[in-house]
Amino acid sequence: MSALPPALTETLRSRFEDRFSIAQALREQHGRGESHHTPEIPDAVVFAETTEEVADLVRLCAAENVPVIAYGAGTSLEGHLTAVRGGISIDLSRMSEILRVSAEDLDCTVQAGATREQLNAHLRDQGLFFPIDPGANASLGGMASTRASGTNAVRYGTMRENVLSLAVVLPTGQVIRTGGRARKSSAGYDLTRLFVGSEGTLGIITEVTVRLYGIPDTISAALCSFESVEQAVNAAIAVVQLGIPVARMELMDRGLIKAVNAYSNLALKIEDTLAFEFHGSPAGVQEQVEMVAAIVEDHGGKDFEWANAPEERNRLWKARHNAFYAVVSQRPNAKGWSSDVCVPVSQLSGCIVKTRELLQGCTVPAAILGHVGDGNYHVVFAVDPTNPREIEEVAAINKKMVEYAISVGGTSTGEHGVGTGKIAYLRHEHGDAVDLMAVIKHAIDPKGIMNPGKILPG
Amino acid sequence: MSALPPALTETLRSRFEDRFSIAQALREQHGRGESHHTPEIPDAVVFAETTEEVADLVRLCAAENVPVIAYGAGTSLEGHLTAVRGGISIDLSRMSEILRVSAEDLDCTVQAGATREQLNAHLRDQGLFFPIDPGANASLGGMASTRASGTNAVRYGTMRENVLSLAVVLPTGQVIRTGGRARKSSAGYDLTRLFVGSEGTLGIITEVTVRLYGIPDTISAALCSFESVEQAVNAAIAVVQLGIPVARMELMDRGLIKAVNAYSNLALKIEDTLAFEFHGSPAGVQEQVEMVAAIVEDHGGKDFEWANAPEERNRLWKARHNAFYAVVSQRPNAKGWSSDVCVPVSQLSGCIVKTRELLQGCTVPAAILGHVGDGNYHVVFAVDPTNPREIEEVAAINKKMVEYAISVGGTSTGEHGVGTGKIAYLRHEHGDAVDLMAVIKHAIDPKGIMNPGKILPG
Repeated sequence: MSALPPALTETLRSRFEDRFSIAQALREQHGRGESHHTPEIPDAVVFAETTEEVADLVRLCAAENVPVIAYGAGTSLEGHLTAVRGGISIDLSRMSEILRVSAEDLDCTVQAGATREQLNAHLRDQGLFFPIDPGANASLGGMASTRASGTNAVRYGTMRENVLSLAVVLPTGQVIRTGGRARKSSAGYDLTRLFVGSEGTLGIITEVTVRLYGIPDTISAALCSFESVEQAVNAAIAVVQLGIPVARMELMDRGLIKAVNAYSNLALKIEDTLAFEFHGSPAGVQEQVEMVAAIVEDHGGKDFEWANAPEERNRLWKARHNAFYAVVSQRPNAKGWSSDVCVPVSQLSGCIVKTRELLQGCTVPAAILGHVGDGNYHVVFAVDPTNPREIEEVAAINKKMVEYAISVGGTSTGEHGVGTGKIAYLRHEHGDAVDLMAVIKHAIDPKGIMNPGKILPG
Repeated sequence: MSALPPALTETLRSRFEDRFSIAQALREQHGRGESHHTPEIPDAVVFAETTEEVADLVRLCAAENVPVIAYGAGTSLEGHLTAVRGGISIDLSRMSEILRVSAEDLDCTVQAGATREQLNAHLRDQGLFFPIDPGANASLGGMASTRASGTNAVRYGTMRENVLSLAVVLPTGQVIRTGGRARKSSAGYDLTRLFVGSEGTLGIITEVTVRLYGIPDTISAALCSFESVEQAVNAAIAVVQLGIPVARMELMDRGLIKAVNAYSNLALKIEDTLAFEFHGSPAGVQEQVEMVAAIVEDHGGKDFEWANAPEERNRLWKARHNAFYAVVSQRPNAKGWSSDVCVPVSQLSGCIVKTRELLQGCTVPAAILGHVGDGNYHVVFAVDPTNPREIEEVAAINKKMVEYAISVGGTSTGEHGVGTGKIAYLRHEHGDAVDLMAVIKHAIDPKGIMNPGKILPG
């Protein structure tokens, strides 16, 4: 049953024909991401193909006070796609064109529905790559909307640092560009950064211009085992504090390695592990490797296992990217629940110790992994979403992790976003600054139709 | 003559005693920056010593609709300090405490009035530095407010990338913190980036938390001469496009070298010059130097002249930082007018050619310099501010430069900010996005008391 005003339904059907749908299964798919959050389904789905179509859709919905929710690849982990007040899910997956690549300026512009794997496949022949890599094959629009990052952020930064400008449809239906192509600018308010991380609550991103990088001359990857997670974390902290420009430095606890081995058909040693990737010139990589090897040894790390052949390296990182799915697949009919705190690196070891204490006696299968070079780590739980006791158990652990992270200067979410899942922590983290966020939200979207119920407490 | 409401004058005088002043010379000093803009003086100056005092001041002024203008080191180049509607200049120079340094997390928090040279002097013993370096010894609050950068931005980024969080006094007098100390966060709107570059028009920054870096093991600097500016620029573009991580790559045309030699008592070869600095390990620097040397040779560059002893290097960069003053000092009673466009690197050579054409026949002494690794360059003119014909001549050249930069995807200001000087170009550059900036401004500062007449067209 769709609750859309009949006149709007008619208008959309005649304008978008079979790209407008109220089919139950499609709506259900569009009302959920990849995690445990209870889905709530939109009243209809429209597959948009141009920025102008998105603008028309928003204009039509605004006139009727109908919510709009942008949908990219559906890989949200914090309930961003939940249609808490119904409305239209605007599916941007058909807007996936790579509009422009400049090898000279190391940048490109893509439609918001293009995915990171698609972009990198497109760039490979030109010797270029786009480094931001959340585990999922997310859309660039979705990644910009949640201020995503991933394993490469320790060296290349997050979407915050790598988006140069955006095309955005505002709640009025007006289309703006938030910037040009210069590497830096002091010309007015930073609208690009305002929309990066705004989760569709201020406007809908339809084009994304991002920085690109040359594929490094030398890429080298290695795994290193430790007796304990704490040892591994302390080694990682030392690497960060010495400023060694590692490209990736990922923690995988032994539980995760086990899950990954099963899911990706690997035979990694089942120990607490750091996975490294080094980018640079041959001499530069050699130098990084030697420095890291010495640190690792000092912290009780056991011998490096190298994965230098591209196919071996790709297998390793693909397995790491699939870690979320690997943990979830350990249990039939489970859903994933990934915590996502990020703390100052000096606090990371204490946080992980605290987290491991919290996990003692936890009845839900869980594994720890993290982009430890940034102070960002996750516990992935494989929960039974039909079991309220389990949901409550994980929620309690998650709450303690978040509160502890905030108490040491950290954040409730390093890269997944607020969605519905972290709303309860926003004021705890930001205090009165939340009121300013609400002022901005209300000024830009006075009707509250842009992805309602996300980011800001009610 | 102060136009302040007498009751406010009384309140401020009794609250701040001799830190409240309506002395003419002091007000004149606070109504101008370092460039050609016609000063307009505030009604009074208050020297604030704490965030709470700033909050009280703003609250008192807001109640009477009296404008407030933050004043740091007074080094603005685009008229940010001009009291176009009178009001109170809040001088933050006494709020210069370094509040906290964490060598472990590579970050620190300072009061907004601390200057970059003061901070670096404080950090040196710990082997740390803060890389953002506009020519002037600006305050960190001012640098955040204008989204400043400087010679190191090609490697270390600008204030946009290096501010972790801020304490800000809002137009209501409320004090907020825009973030924690985690390296990344997806928890809500990016208020930090909203205030970075907002030039005091949304609130007054009172504390700044920034990233720090370890002083590199090896630092090496070199000058290289070219037959023409175009050759030098093309060499610089090639260095950027190959992704060589130079720390600094600065263009100085022969006119500038002449001025710098005279001002800083140096004997640099009077030719179009690129100045480089390389940071890294000994092997890493060696590698960068070899790659750059090969590129420079391909582009007709003549032999490197090294400045590796710290005192020699410091002299070189001090001279470069004083370039603005060097050009201005060529002419008695002149004022500086610095253009400040930034373009995609692929467009830089064309822009410089165009600029040199515009400068042919210019009657005002001028020199070209630039952070060419970012596509950001300046023409510094030494104008006679009492001669309207000269002001008109430079304004016409500046206008053409800005319009050309925008036409190739660039920006009207790479690092100096909008102030009053670039307002006329904002809509040309951003189109309808300016309306969104105005919506944000009006929502946060409905009375329009925060540094009025800056950034947004009237």
